[in-house]
Amino acid sequence: MTEPSLIGKSIPKIDSLTKATGEAKYTADLTLPRMLHGRILRSPYPHARILSIDTSEVERLPGVKAVLTGRDTAGEKWGVFRYTRDQQLLPVDRVRYVGEEVAAVAAVSEDVAQEALELIRIDYEALPAVFTIEEAMAEGAPLIHEGFARNINIHVPIEVGDVEGELSQAHLVREDTFVSEEESYFMSEPYAILASYNTAGNLEIWMPNASPHTKAKALSNVLKIRLSKVQVRKTTIGGAFGGRSDVFPGEFIAAMLSIKAARPVKIVYSREENTTATRQGHSMITTIKTGVDRDGVVTARDITCYMDGGAYSSTGPIATSVPFLCLEQVYRMPNVRYNGYRIYTNKPIRGMIRTHGRAFACGVDMQLDMIAEELGLDPMEIRLRNATRQGDILPTKSVVHSCALDETIRQAAEKSKWKEKRGKLRPYRGIGMGCNSVQTGFPLGIRGGSQAIIKFNEDGGATVISGVVDTGQGNDNMLVQIAAQELGLPMEEIRLISADTETTPTDAGCYSMVTTFAGGNAVRLAARDAKLQLFDVAAEMMGAEPGDLVARDGQILIEGESPTGIPIRKVVRKALLEDKPIMGRGHYTPHVDHTREWIKNPQGQLSEAFSFGTTVAEVEVDPETGQVRVLEVTAAQDCGYAINPMIVEGQFEGGVAMGGQGGVLTEGHQWDGGHMFNPTYREYKIPLACDMPHINPIIVESLDPNGPYGAKEAGMSIAMSAAQAYCNAICNAIGTWIQELPFTPETILRAIETKEGSSSGEQAR
Amino acid sequence: MTEPSLIGKSIPKIDSLTKATGEAKYTADLTLPRMLHGRILRSPYPHARILSIDTSEVERLPGVKAVLTGRDTAGEKWGVFRYTRDQQLLPVDRVRYVGEEVAAVAAVSEDVAQEALELIRIDYEALPAVFTIEEAMAEGAPLIHEGFARNINIHVPIEVGDVEGELSQAHLVREDTFVSEEESYFMSEPYAILASYNTAGNLEIWMPNASPHTKAKALSNVLKIRLSKVQVRKTTIGGAFGGRSDVFPGEFIAAMLSIKAARPVKIVYSREENTTATRQGHSMITTIKTGVDRDGVVTARDITCYMDGGAYSSTGPIATSVPFLCLEQVYRMPNVRYNGYRIYTNKPIRGMIRTHGRAFACGVDMQLDMIAEELGLDPMEIRLRNATRQGDILPTKSVVHSCALDETIRQAAEKSKWKEKRGKLRPYRGIGMGCNSVQTGFPLGIRGGSQAIIKFNEDGGATVISGVVDTGQGNDNMLVQIAAQELGLPMEEIRLISADTETTPTDAGCYSMVTTFAGGNAVRLAARDAKLQLFDVAAEMMGAEPGDLVARDGQILIEGESPTGIPIRKVVRKALLEDKPIMGRGHYTPHVDHTREWIKNPQGQLSEAFSFGTTVAEVEVDPETGQVRVLEVTAAQDCGYAINPMIVEGQFEGGVAMGGQGGVLTEGHQWDGGHMFNPTYREYKIPLACDMPHINPIIVESLDPNGPYGAKEAGMSIAMSAAQAYCNAICNAIGTWIQELPFTPETILRAIETKEGSSSGEQAR
Repeated sequence: MTEPSLIGKSIPKIDSLTKATGEAKYTADLTLPRMLHGRILRSPYPHARILSIDTSEVERLPGVKAVLTGRDTAGEKWGVFRYTRDQQLLPVDRVRYVGEEVAAVAAVSEDVAQEALELIRIDYEALPAVFTIEEAMAEGAPLIHEGFARNINIHVPIEVGDVEGELSQAHLVREDTFVSEEESYFMSEPYAILASYNTAGNLEIWMPNASPHTKAKALSNVLKIRLSKVQVRKTTIGGAFGGRSDVFPGEFIAAMLSIKAARPVKIVYSREENTTATRQGHSMITTIKTGVDRDGVVTARDITCYMDGGAYSSTGPIATSVPFLCLEQVYRMPNVRYNGYRIYTNKPIRGMIRTHGRAFACGVDMQLDMIAEELGLDPMEIRLRNATRQGDILPTKSVVHSCALDETIRQAAEKSKWKEKRGKLRPYRGIGMGCNSVQTGFPLGIRGGSQAIIKFNEDGGATVISGVVDTGQGNDNMLVQIAAQELGLPMEEIRLISADTETTPTDAGCYSMVTTFAGGNAVRLAARDAKLQLFDVAAEMMGAEPGDLVARDGQILIEGESPTGIPIRKVVRKALLEDKPIMGRGHYTPHVDHTREWIKNPQGQLSEAFSFGTTVAEVEVDPETGQVRVLEVTAAQDCGYAINPMIVEGQFEGGVAMGGQGGVLTEGHQWDGGHMFNPTYREYKIPLACDMPHINPIIVESLDPNGPYGAKEAGMSIAMSAAQAYCNAICNAIGTWIQELPFTPETILRAIETKEGSSSGEQAR
Repeated sequence: MTEPSLIGKSIPKIDSLTKATGEAKYTADLTLPRMLHGRILRSPYPHARILSIDTSEVERLPGVKAVLTGRDTAGEKWGVFRYTRDQQLLPVDRVRYVGEEVAAVAAVSEDVAQEALELIRIDYEALPAVFTIEEAMAEGAPLIHEGFARNINIHVPIEVGDVEGELSQAHLVREDTFVSEEESYFMSEPYAILASYNTAGNLEIWMPNASPHTKAKALSNVLKIRLSKVQVRKTTIGGAFGGRSDVFPGEFIAAMLSIKAARPVKIVYSREENTTATRQGHSMITTIKTGVDRDGVVTARDITCYMDGGAYSSTGPIATSVPFLCLEQVYRMPNVRYNGYRIYTNKPIRGMIRTHGRAFACGVDMQLDMIAEELGLDPMEIRLRNATRQGDILPTKSVVHSCALDETIRQAAEKSKWKEKRGKLRPYRGIGMGCNSVQTGFPLGIRGGSQAIIKFNEDGGATVISGVVDTGQGNDNMLVQIAAQELGLPMEEIRLISADTETTPTDAGCYSMVTTFAGGNAVRLAARDAKLQLFDVAAEMMGAEPGDLVARDGQILIEGESPTGIPIRKVVRKALLEDKPIMGRGHYTPHVDHTREWIKNPQGQLSEAFSFGTTVAEVEVDPETGQVRVLEVTAAQDCGYAINPMIVEGQFEGGVAMGGQGGVLTEGHQWDGGHMFNPTYREYKIPLACDMPHINPIIVESLDPNGPYGAKEAGMSIAMSAAQAYCNAICNAIGTWIQELPFTPETILRAIETKEGSSSGEQAR
């Protein structure tokens, strides 16, 4: 590898300026000639039969151009997987949660569309509903979908080794149960769709998404329009976090309305709609039974996890497997049993979220602290003894090619002064640690990984064409930075075409943290292909061997000779004159085992790389109010290699905010009979910049053998260890355990009171 | 070559439906958020000094967001060539024609913009002006540009062989002079520009154009924005015909207004502006001296041509050479002298037009008829004796690789019953013939010819990415048809991305009839590259050799075996699974001599291929009114190979309409002191569909060795032979010569009267 000049540098994102000035256009900002405004009528019942729908009145309202109900659809069911097709995108005869789509209109203005909704008459027959895991699984509970006994939507059973045997021989066994409420992303951009269908049979569509190619494929299936005629267009995206995957009824509805009205239709979700009708995190009940030897080394674990999935499957199957997979990556456990159950309830549909389930991640990690306490071990020490190492083979058989988890533990401990502080802080101050791991790409999505094209323009600049989407995390920047590095060009000389299914080749999407690994590698390979073509032409111009050349600072040079060479611009022109236009191709598919139905039964190499990290949080709890003040957070992450450290550190900050500060302290949904109490910013409290503690970011580089420049997942997963560190720090501060998330002031006060009650009780005895 | 299944078939254009429904959006139809409307203030003087410009009042008008004058520009001069930089895109101190751009505003509506123009106060000092070639070249005439004596803008002198010697020894020498008025295209779409400059320094711009990449390059130069940051976007285009080349002040102005206002700006030209301020055809005075031997074979020619170029150079240098080049291609002339002069006058700027000068093309061809008459030869016979043949080397040294001119003469004569009719028609009926040739690509424009990418999508469809632009002639269809043919896919399975400088690789533009040759060849090669990749994967699936495979009907088959094979869709998926995504590259640059300044001094292989054609027209003239009724037209064209005969025949129809029906009978501009009398449809008469005669189309295929499937220029050049055939037919009908175009009823009547006067005079003598 030539010494990187751009890679590894903190470079501001290429789209920062247009985002700051407001020039960047999100889907809701877009307009098209003759565009109509769509609105969706939603179910007021958590569970009901649709007896009749009368749209006669609305059809007479001036300005209404199209009305859509389940009658207009084939009544077919949609599902992310073949075996989870349980949702009619517009239900024909039954609704299953408050907020479910029932009908829609397209009209000349939003006001007319809203008025129109009120003229649609629907007769419902209310059905008995269930709102919690316990209610749903109870004997005799109403079934939300036929054929799913006890409302069990998904069951993922995994068993490796001799769990019962090892537990029976363990030095110490603990069993604990942890619970958490549903959490939401509150991405800055509420959902919006603009769909435009034309008489040539093409559907152009814009929406925030995590994979334009996957979205196009799904829309092609549900709309019966062939894939090549579905054009998902690039738009600025204000956050995805797992919640922009899946096909939403809104897209189907916008497209169908555009087809019916023969005009473009835009639907902009309200914040309430975004919270209830896109996909957010599951509530969970997790019971963990762990056996350790006398050194605190885990010998066996048995985990049962119940997740409230809401009314339909969506991406729930993935969300049912992934908590376990993240766990098996971070801590060794030779014998393990996992039973993950996703339960249908009459609540909004849940999907994937950053921490993959607080009750799970925090439960496992808090229990390690509980065990350490019983054994008199330092929490850092027990983590080092159980940490995954490079070369490990995980229970489900993935090989860990690169891992510096132990190094992240040590560096986070050193920076946070762990040894000086743990057990030595004044009352109601605490310090806690958590460790995380996450995969860099599951065997998901579009076939063929990621492909890229790089074409050289006459002025010596280059254009990268890639299917990668940027949902806000900086993927666009990453692609340009890699191309510029490989081609020896300044970033200003690279143009990027991306995330448009018509223009760009396929990319599997920005799921499971794979984008830099697959998309970045593809661009790197395309750039190398182009560079070799440049070298061929330059070698002739310079009387050199192509193999002796390097590209740097806009020039092609002979390695080790004079610092000036031929400008790339001139080589490009020469190539054009010689009829050898420069155009590079590259593609990369992560080397994983494409096991059929791996989600139900994970086996084999499930990700080519895994990242690891450790967070330490120091907190102070006010025993009078239960308020938590976070004094300092240290986040250390083995991201393989930090292509752009500023962006990696930005991921740490986002992770601490979402996983720790919001996820542990304030965030959770409350309900009444299937109605959500807190769907907006006003009631659901996410942390603001001013709420955030000081964060010490530490980047640890294990140089993954397959990642571009050694890079793998960057820092998203700090959200997990941050959650765990917050939990452990608070429990350390108050001297007792809390097993219910979020840790609101009420919860904390109750824990303190319970502890004091039991202590005083003990004293009394 | 496998037997073509799509190529050679008459297939409706892929964009016909959206054009018919009005869904196709032309530049004037486009809107962007916060878009402003621009209007241009134009000079009321044909020649004047700008003494002062006062914009203080307009700047106070509410709704005006930007005002632009020459002061805002660097005052630099623009020219299509380095040596023709004579035009300030907004003049600083002098205007040179009525309609020249002087100032511009951008405002919230067109009305406000129009009102704003009226508030700009400009003091002019009128200067003496010249309006005709004779006035401009007269001794002591005011000079329009310093340093151009006698207002000679361009002089192209060509001399080959011993002209004087051969003329002195010729059996017969004729010298005739022909004149013609300026002609205009009246393309269906008036000019429009939408420019949007953002804070990241990118200029997005839409306009009807004949080469997005050339336009981007020119705009990059004049605006000092680097090429990669100028994005010329695809838009539907309503005709180009040579008149959408060059950079127009309107584009510069729209871009500058957008930069000043920091908002998108759209300028839509009125029909008057389109006629006077874009580039249309020259008026001409051509004197032709031709010597022939006793068999009517031309031994020498001496041609002097004066062209009224208007106020600036624009594409005039090309227009000065090209009439001669078309002539040298069609008829042999071993000894030839050409002096082409383009003269500056105080009239709108002229550029290229389809017939490359009626007075020239018709003059040469009519003079052949005159000579034939003197020698007692049939006009068809004299053409056959002088026609270019395959293998000929032209005076400027191009080799003619394919030529079936003689065949077009014979077939047109046969179909039109030439032998039965010529000389045997009743009085005032006439039949005339003309022959044409045109190049298939000059050494012009962007380096590197045309490049194409073909990417396969997961559903087995393919996307063609090409820089080729479709100005209405069907290029988009051509690209898709070729890709479909090569890939063995139905056309519906091919998507096209084209004519966007950001997304697509370079293409030299749709100039000089090169698009099918270069762009079509590039797509064909890219498709073949992709196909070979498919064959590699399919061969393994089928246990066959890649070389034995063919792609047909969406399948890959073993040549000569069972008629069913593996669906391409499956091969594409297999390739993706095997991590071999299918992506093809191709490029083609015509093999021409890139002589420096070939326009001034044409030498060498100037085009890789030449097309040839013959038109026969039969007319009836009403001797009372001078009205011409065209009874039938037969057009035969050697287009190499007709990829889509329907489109080739459409070119014939357009050529007959523009060159013959309009060009000879009705079209021409009249002036008063530099003011054009007839800038709109109301006064300038172009033929409508109902005016058109029956046309017999004859396609002759010489299979050019280098063109895709043998194709070369399709049928544009029928415009020339149509003009000539109309002229010769009318002269045949009235029994005398007219040497002034257009042949209006007045002109025809005058010729009849003159002839009758001279006949009666003779009778009287």
